[in-house]
Amino acid sequence: MNAGASALFRGLARVDTVPFANRGLHYGDGLFETLRVHRGEVPLWLRHLARLRDGSARLDIPLPDLHFVQARIAELIAGIDAGVLKLLLTRGEGGRGYAPPVDAPPTWMLALHPLPATPAALRLHPCTIRLAIQPALAGIKHCNRLEQVLARAEVERAGCDEGLLCDTDGRPVCATAANLLVFDGQGWRTPAVDRCGVAGVLRGWLLEQGLLEEAALSMEDVASAEALALCNAVRGILPVAMLGARRWRAHPATTELQARLAMAYPMFSVPGQARP
Amino acid sequence: MNAGASALFRGLARVDTVPFANRGLHYGDGLFETLRVHRGEVPLWLRHLARLRDGSARLDIPLPDLHFVQARIAELIAGIDAGVLKLLLTRGEGGRGYAPPVDAPPTWMLALHPLPATPAALRLHPCTIRLAIQPALAGIKHCNRLEQVLARAEVERAGCDEGLLCDTDGRPVCATAANLLVFDGQGWRTPAVDRCGVAGVLRGWLLEQGLLEEAALSMEDVASAEALALCNAVRGILPVAMLGARRWRAHPATTELQARLAMAYPMFSVPGQARP
Repeated sequence: MNAGASALFRGLARVDTVPFANRGLHYGDGLFETLRVHRGEVPLWLRHLARLRDGSARLDIPLPDLHFVQARIAELIAGIDAGVLKLLLTRGEGGRGYAPPVDAPPTWMLALHPLPATPAALRLHPCTIRLAIQPALAGIKHCNRLEQVLARAEVERAGCDEGLLCDTDGRPVCATAANLLVFDGQGWRTPAVDRCGVAGVLRGWLLEQGLLEEAALSMEDVASAEALALCNAVRGILPVAMLGARRWRAHPATTELQARLAMAYPMFSVPGQARP
Repeated sequence: MNAGASALFRGLARVDTVPFANRGLHYGDGLFETLRVHRGEVPLWLRHLARLRDGSARLDIPLPDLHFVQARIAELIAGIDAGVLKLLLTRGEGGRGYAPPVDAPPTWMLALHPLPATPAALRLHPCTIRLAIQPALAGIKHCNRLEQVLARAEVERAGCDEGLLCDTDGRPVCATAANLLVFDGQGWRTPAVDRCGVAGVLRGWLLEQGLLEEAALSMEDVASAEALALCNAVRGILPVAMLGARRWRAHPATTELQARLAMAYPMFSVPGQARP
């Protein structure tokens, strides 16, 4: 299987098409994971799986047999040196209107994409759209992503690489597809994601390693930070060079954090930086 | 074409399947309308069309040629005495992650369903899930509907017909698939939908006729109302008999409002009530 290929399943059956009645299409009634593929393996897989299980429990979307899913993923990425794998799971078909169907087999899909090019440092656009506060959906990687689509359209129009998103109370939360890391001179901080935003798997790893702490952050905290970075499971940790009129130079705290990550997950090594 | 049938288009081309890459599946990146079909016609069509145009402009999702769409709808519902037509429009395929694609033809679908049975009076469940406040998405009928899916699951578990939804500030807004009408003894009131909720087409007609006014309403206003009703474009106006422990008897204000609607749109006449 090559980059660009995809596979679609209904429960444990391979199928060819998505029926019109799929609830993903109608309501964004699903979950997804975006996975880094490296030499036929998926780094941080168990964390992706834990978040998928959490989303499944909170939305009451049944999971297909996970051994079966893992076997299909292993087949698909065997021999793939570098790529991005998207796993999409929807509640399947049916139900009267919004009412979730009972015992419908979930639909899930795998698609392999090339690894995107990664800029050395990111230009961030301060997005005008805010994230709504919804604890019932916060943290999980569900498919209701119009806020991110609108934010990303702003980023494109601004000619930037990514966007900084605040919640409707004006507090910075995350980027459109990455978590926010703020170095205040003492340590790395990241906003909580219990009211909006996604609990990124790499963010989770950094927190567990004691390399990052949750903190309530204001826009002033972000603007006055010594260094900013974004992290996600596909691109690792990327420094931020610009946010609106504010500029940052390369900072040793970012290099150090990248090196700590590369020690555990060498696929996130930064080209040109000494391998630890 | 019979109830249960559907048709799928990519721009102006009839197609057979929804590709994996459709943005509706991944992000709920789309809009929909749920239309009453009556004797080969769609009551309130121009209002549905206006809301679709509004959603299209606000989300920057291109519309297919609307004359073409209307011609396909006319073919589809010709000879259909009563039914529900769903029109679903997604941003089509592609784009790098959340970034909207440039010039992708939109995908749209038509599906005809039987008219649902309508109870004489509704039992409402007070939903625990709240609606997030998001002015950028309020009013339009977009496909990010996990809040409604979770609310409807609550309604099913409670054995009720519909659910009352409050926003995260605790203010009543709407039902899962209908607008809220509150009779305070003087007139009918309905909450604004500029922070969350959908601007229902029948709600719009009632406002324009001077039969309904927007008002800020609290849960106390709802509980102390002389009468409650829900309205939508498929089922018209339905009285509410129950909300939690509160009960309402049939009220002449509701019968009068139903009669005013039936005068303009006879398909919404209530069986057993005298035709005006």
